[in-house]
Amino acid sequence: MAKQKKQPRPKAETPKGFRDYFGAEVDERNAMLAEIARVYALYGFDPLETSGVETVEALGKFLPDVDRPNEGVFAWEEDDSGWVALRYDLTAPLARVAAQYRNDLPSPYRRYAMGPVWRNEKPGPGRFRQFYQCDADTVGSASPAADAEICAMLADTLEAVGIPRGDYLVRINNRKILDGVLDHIGLGRTSLDADTLRGTIEQAFDVETRNAVLRTIDKFDKVGEQGVRDLLGKGRKDDSGAFIDGVGLDEAQADPVVAFLTSKAESAEETFVNLRAAVGESAVGADGIAELEQIAALLAAQGYGPDRIEVDPSVVRGLGYYTGPVFEAELTFEITDEKGRPRQFGSVAGGGRYDDLVKRFTGQAVPATGVSIGVDRLLAALRAKGRLSGETRGPVVVTVMDRDRMADYQAMVGELRSAGIRAEVYLGNPKNFGNQLKYADKRASPVAVIQGGDEAERGVVQLKDLVLGAKLAEGLTREEWAEQPAQVEISRADLVAEVQKMLDRD
Amino acid sequence: MAKQKKQPRPKAETPKGFRDYFGAEVDERNAMLAEIARVYALYGFDPLETSGVETVEALGKFLPDVDRPNEGVFAWEEDDSGWVALRYDLTAPLARVAAQYRNDLPSPYRRYAMGPVWRNEKPGPGRFRQFYQCDADTVGSASPAADAEICAMLADTLEAVGIPRGDYLVRINNRKILDGVLDHIGLGRTSLDADTLRGTIEQAFDVETRNAVLRTIDKFDKVGEQGVRDLLGKGRKDDSGAFIDGVGLDEAQADPVVAFLTSKAESAEETFVNLRAAVGESAVGADGIAELEQIAALLAAQGYGPDRIEVDPSVVRGLGYYTGPVFEAELTFEITDEKGRPRQFGSVAGGGRYDDLVKRFTGQAVPATGVSIGVDRLLAALRAKGRLSGETRGPVVVTVMDRDRMADYQAMVGELRSAGIRAEVYLGNPKNFGNQLKYADKRASPVAVIQGGDEAERGVVQLKDLVLGAKLAEGLTREEWAEQPAQVEISRADLVAEVQKMLDRD
Repeated sequence: MAKQKKQPRPKAETPKGFRDYFGAEVDERNAMLAEIARVYALYGFDPLETSGVETVEALGKFLPDVDRPNEGVFAWEEDDSGWVALRYDLTAPLARVAAQYRNDLPSPYRRYAMGPVWRNEKPGPGRFRQFYQCDADTVGSASPAADAEICAMLADTLEAVGIPRGDYLVRINNRKILDGVLDHIGLGRTSLDADTLRGTIEQAFDVETRNAVLRTIDKFDKVGEQGVRDLLGKGRKDDSGAFIDGVGLDEAQADPVVAFLTSKAESAEETFVNLRAAVGESAVGADGIAELEQIAALLAAQGYGPDRIEVDPSVVRGLGYYTGPVFEAELTFEITDEKGRPRQFGSVAGGGRYDDLVKRFTGQAVPATGVSIGVDRLLAALRAKGRLSGETRGPVVVTVMDRDRMADYQAMVGELRSAGIRAEVYLGNPKNFGNQLKYADKRASPVAVIQGGDEAERGVVQLKDLVLGAKLAEGLTREEWAEQPAQVEISRADLVAEVQKMLDRD
Repeated sequence: MAKQKKQPRPKAETPKGFRDYFGAEVDERNAMLAEIARVYALYGFDPLETSGVETVEALGKFLPDVDRPNEGVFAWEEDDSGWVALRYDLTAPLARVAAQYRNDLPSPYRRYAMGPVWRNEKPGPGRFRQFYQCDADTVGSASPAADAEICAMLADTLEAVGIPRGDYLVRINNRKILDGVLDHIGLGRTSLDADTLRGTIEQAFDVETRNAVLRTIDKFDKVGEQGVRDLLGKGRKDDSGAFIDGVGLDEAQADPVVAFLTSKAESAEETFVNLRAAVGESAVGADGIAELEQIAALLAAQGYGPDRIEVDPSVVRGLGYYTGPVFEAELTFEITDEKGRPRQFGSVAGGGRYDDLVKRFTGQAVPATGVSIGVDRLLAALRAKGRLSGETRGPVVVTVMDRDRMADYQAMVGELRSAGIRAEVYLGNPKNFGNQLKYADKRASPVAVIQGGDEAERGVVQLKDLVLGAKLAEGLTREEWAEQPAQVEISRADLVAEVQKMLDRD
């Protein structure tokens, strides 16, 4: 027989853009998910767990003529299922569920979902291809009360997971208002959406203009009011001195857009006055303002003031599928970035109303609204503020002095566990005792238990306080150390009580 | 412009073999995972969460010359990462992590992991392509104390999630004992494993014989002692009268195999005597017996008697990678299957020692042992025994009588939630009040709150006890019903207290 070819050893690595989570990272995330679930459930939302894999058809993000439909998602072909993909969010699976079980689910259907989603995007620092989302949505209610409820719940949730009032702001807006502004200046969606592309060349030209206006609006943060005014009109010189062509609107058209961008006032009432001016006679614009006013009124009546939730027309949200109210939660405190510079932490959650997602499946429009919390970003924020330690206390380690008395050591950990104390026996090679203490250190163990044959005969054990030892290493003086001896001999019978005492002291 | 082709509507379906989990199913699983995590943590195990996607190379289950390596797994090719796949268990990712972080992790490394795994297998009733596993493993300890600890923890875990003592049994064995039996009759692995296939034709012939013996051992349950004896020797007639050729062993070779198969005795001591006879002078067999004795002794010393954990040489475990001790947890109670027949529930967890998995990456053998709990099977068992209801109490539903008093209704749910009571306002179209009560029923709501304009003026609300209503429908007499009025008028100020009273009564 031919000699087998030797296989090269496989690389012990995750695929690009994926990572592993250890110990406290997992615990802290699970604790946060449980707390979010508690608030969501309190609001009457029911859990739903769909699987990680969906048909590409149901996810519906792809062009029919693309051979390998993997733009932004992980997709592959299966013999018996056709093209399938990992879910890229929790909303697309919800739309599928709402359509699939429409005769069985209560209506409105309030559901929450939490779990990993996958994006086939270029990974970067802190940006991974698998991350957690935590969504709550109400399907089947067109009422602005449903939107208001989501916003109130979002504020409650942020406080429940440890973001105090004042450190966050939920900002709300309505997509229809921007539509109203465009309507007002003759570039409204009603006459120009995808279905009407079959129309005249003149209209196609207006779509171009409309898109140019939207791109200009996006530059407001960078170029300011006058800059936008120039870019909407004849154009302007940029910083490098190059001339940027304008969209070519006249003054009367540019005014409402600028009015919209600068509409945010001290009070919601004034903001609404400004917005009404910006949308003019547009029906869709008036609609959007009315919805936003209702949401604001409901929230105010429930005591959610502008210190928690405020109307802010600058909120747009990237996703194209939002059709009405949109919301965004932002953390308002500063953190220090990798380069030591202070910066705002920014957005940790967002959502809005999307009335067309279920329609894809059934042909019937189903109103829906919801929010998605970026759990990993929220955890990062709490860690940046020092509100999560990223560390957990390790177990009590019972060391092994005599290999043949393993049963004695197991009995000790058994007693400790029965009292609810994390505990383990050292299971490595017990020959080198120093290694056992090094191990206990690496485990962040608070207490090491030591019993040699001599101690066993005398019915005692040694307890070594490893937290105190660490404090000593960090600068506790010898005198302080002497007052609180880091190692004590106790009766074997008092093991649990004495360990508990030591844990309580730390 | 050409008229756009109309897209057919997508199907609202999961891919084949996947399913959705609703409400109580999700809650019950999360509660079980949390309880298992609590016990694992108490034993000193630390959480680890790897991602769903691994490189095919790291998972290492594939032949290098297969173009599409998707046997049993979901795999696809990425431009920047090569072939990747969804993890099919939690052990392969652990081996990768243990190799990747070998200089940073404590040794021994005790870790637990819980989450979905994916198998590209033919789905069947109750068999899905995504399901949960819940594993605990100790990497870096060769001590039988590590195996004993896993077995004790498994017993504790089963009791913690609601399987009472007597309803389960952890059965333990050691792979080396069967190796010892084969060794004893000249078919041992030491001289015949894959590496030596390069050897003589004579040896290749022995591998054939060895495999035939293993296949025959597998038939013990079906054909019994005499049947196995015949099949190991000259052969036998099966039930249809056809003659099945035997393996061709002589009496002296067949005897140890039969002795092994019938070795289980009343006590572990007797079983060990029988096993020693079956392995004869085999060193590996003696090794296996010694390890099994140590594990049994440690468990006995900790009080885990044969009512919880017993030595059982019939435990084999399918996976090829086990190298020593193997264990299996079985539920011993009967359930009724789909066809109304009683049957044993069977295995819910299994594991063992696998000393070669990390070696694939590093070249260095790392001893490891662990267990995997099939969480979905365990949930099914608890449901079959009626220990999980599969139902949760829905939220209190505040109905909407006057659309323009939404803020009042929101205030009610706000108060209820502040008292920790799940509550929601009806968000559908409030026009038809009957629909609101139907909705509350569908939500399994315990209490409906009703307040019309008249009641608002008088400062009262109506509470409707929906649980009592359901009981009435189920046969509660009119008289009993009258004693506990299903609908009461209470003061608006007492809303929280009165609702709480109603919830406590149910």
